[in-house]
Amino acid sequence: MQGKYRALWLNDDNFLEVIDQTKLPFEYVTKVLKTTDEVVEAIKDMTVRGAGVIGSVASFGIYTACMEVNSYEELKAKALLIRESRPTAVNLMWAVDRMMEQLKNSDDLVVDAKRFAIELNDEEAIESQNIAKYGADIIEEILKDKNKKKINILTHCNAGWLAVIDEGTALAPIYEAKKRGIDVHVWVDETRPRNQGASLTAWELSESGVKHTIIADNTGGHLMQIGEVDMVITGADRVSANGDVANKIGTYLKALSAKDNDIPFYVAIPASTFDFDITDGLSGIPIELRSEDEVKYMRGVDSDGIVREVLITPKDSPAINYGFDVTPARLITGLITDKGLCEANFDKIKEKFNNPLSEVGL
Amino acid sequence: MQGKYRALWLNDDNFLEVIDQTKLPFEYVTKVLKTTDEVVEAIKDMTVRGAGVIGSVASFGIYTACMEVNSYEELKAKALLIRESRPTAVNLMWAVDRMMEQLKNSDDLVVDAKRFAIELNDEEAIESQNIAKYGADIIEEILKDKNKKKINILTHCNAGWLAVIDEGTALAPIYEAKKRGIDVHVWVDETRPRNQGASLTAWELSESGVKHTIIADNTGGHLMQIGEVDMVITGADRVSANGDVANKIGTYLKALSAKDNDIPFYVAIPASTFDFDITDGLSGIPIELRSEDEVKYMRGVDSDGIVREVLITPKDSPAINYGFDVTPARLITGLITDKGLCEANFDKIKEKFNNPLSEVGL
Repeated sequence: MQGKYRALWLNDDNFLEVIDQTKLPFEYVTKVLKTTDEVVEAIKDMTVRGAGVIGSVASFGIYTACMEVNSYEELKAKALLIRESRPTAVNLMWAVDRMMEQLKNSDDLVVDAKRFAIELNDEEAIESQNIAKYGADIIEEILKDKNKKKINILTHCNAGWLAVIDEGTALAPIYEAKKRGIDVHVWVDETRPRNQGASLTAWELSESGVKHTIIADNTGGHLMQIGEVDMVITGADRVSANGDVANKIGTYLKALSAKDNDIPFYVAIPASTFDFDITDGLSGIPIELRSEDEVKYMRGVDSDGIVREVLITPKDSPAINYGFDVTPARLITGLITDKGLCEANFDKIKEKFNNPLSEVGL
Repeated sequence: MQGKYRALWLNDDNFLEVIDQTKLPFEYVTKVLKTTDEVVEAIKDMTVRGAGVIGSVASFGIYTACMEVNSYEELKAKALLIRESRPTAVNLMWAVDRMMEQLKNSDDLVVDAKRFAIELNDEEAIESQNIAKYGADIIEEILKDKNKKKINILTHCNAGWLAVIDEGTALAPIYEAKKRGIDVHVWVDETRPRNQGASLTAWELSESGVKHTIIADNTGGHLMQIGEVDMVITGADRVSANGDVANKIGTYLKALSAKDNDIPFYVAIPASTFDFDITDGLSGIPIELRSEDEVKYMRGVDSDGIVREVLITPKDSPAINYGFDVTPARLITGLITDKGLCEANFDKIKEKFNNPLSEVGL
């Protein structure tokens, strides 16, 4: 597990330890996840979140589960619990399936699972570095084309190192651009209802000294209209074989606005984000429905520095909370992948990637 | 001033009294505005907000100012302060200009201003009732065309009776539809950063027993994609002569999404919302820039029932807070006006409306 920052690691006792992302940016708290149940709960309650990190946690979750079982058959039930802890991000299913495939003939589940999980995460880190490089090349091209010195990039949700091992996906090209000396400024969508932008992306960028400005999710369209956005980069939770992108709810609205204003809209993903079994993302990708309380209550810190949760709506008004939406491939300029830029369509995706994993049949 | 609910009124002492809308939905508090300065401050700090209500308060603000001056010449300076208290909603300028025009040859400013302000508000109430009627007719047509019994309407911000005298603009057709026995359900955009949807629209609809569900501003696109939105109705703060609509930030994103999903997008406005001097809304309508604190801090009620403001971002991360955006006329199905449905284009608007007010030259 490379990179300066880490969202998860094996601690000195060989247990999985993670940053509790529900507490950021006000408190830096870590949690040790000692059992499968704790891993599942941490994914469900978003202690850990972000497509890549969910996959990473799931891989170490399998390792954790191995400590609780006596056989591969017993492990299957635990693996299924982890696999079904959240429905939209496919990296979760991918990581569980890959681990289970690798462990099929293992003589020592715990030892092998630890090794395979570390391998998986190291590979993801390398993929993040490749995404960083290819994405930063695109940033340089845009600046060259526009003959500009400073680039304004809009991003939605959090797809940095808190979301994906190493430097993330959407934020990786931004960190790389900064390293290359490019003057980069990020418009950070606050990303209601869970505020991953305002709390996580803003915090990440602050820690790394990247210039940024938080905006309400409503603001991106206006900024695009007045010429203040040069490109959009988001991550994704699942990309179907035809290039439709499921990502944090609201991504679709920004893609529409980018299209309407001729602004390039990129999605940065590792190979594990593809779901080759789904050929139409709009109808095929399951969209998670979460608790209405995530809309009705807001967490923050009061003037005395105490973290509080406050109700921000009439108590009896209902709310509904879809976690993701699907952006049709037609709105996407390109996919920034670990294998380079890829057009968001069936043929180009098939050409560059093949389903690397057979079904494990959990 | 008709209607069951009122956002402002003259109290028994003949002073302007308003509901403090910054306190809703957690506290119902009214404020008496006894001086021009208090009126200006109430508009600036959004104690009163909503294009129509700002105009209404401004008309009584002129009456309030009349109590402080000895001549029409002295009144002009006070009127200018009110006129410039917020930049985007044109009803404010319209109301001040109309009052000043009417008071030009007055022998008794206080008595006449009171009468003219009441007249202006009574006219706006009748306009609201007309908008209600024409809008409800459109709702009935949509249900008939779709052969449906229940209509799902999405609205952004608050354009009900808290925003415009009587029953508002965008919400007036909804209230009228309910009176006609139509099964109506409203998707309420929470409308960050000031949450006028989650706090004001949800509260209004609760009070009136209209079914509704609060959603994060990010959610409308997905709901449209899955067929859960039959129409969109918003209000407006200014409509240019060519039909471009300035409204609460984020309106443009919903209009794009409605267009992409073939969903009718209506804007409900009284005649006072037109700005005939601006022929291109995108370049011509001034967009208010407000404090970053409205993005960084959130107000709500804690588990002990205490109203608190909490910081929801890293303390040192900057934010930017544009109050409005402009939706191009090409995305608008029609304007629901007090004179009936009007296409959003120069010729149709000119045909139905004429600039009713000469410049008063403040």
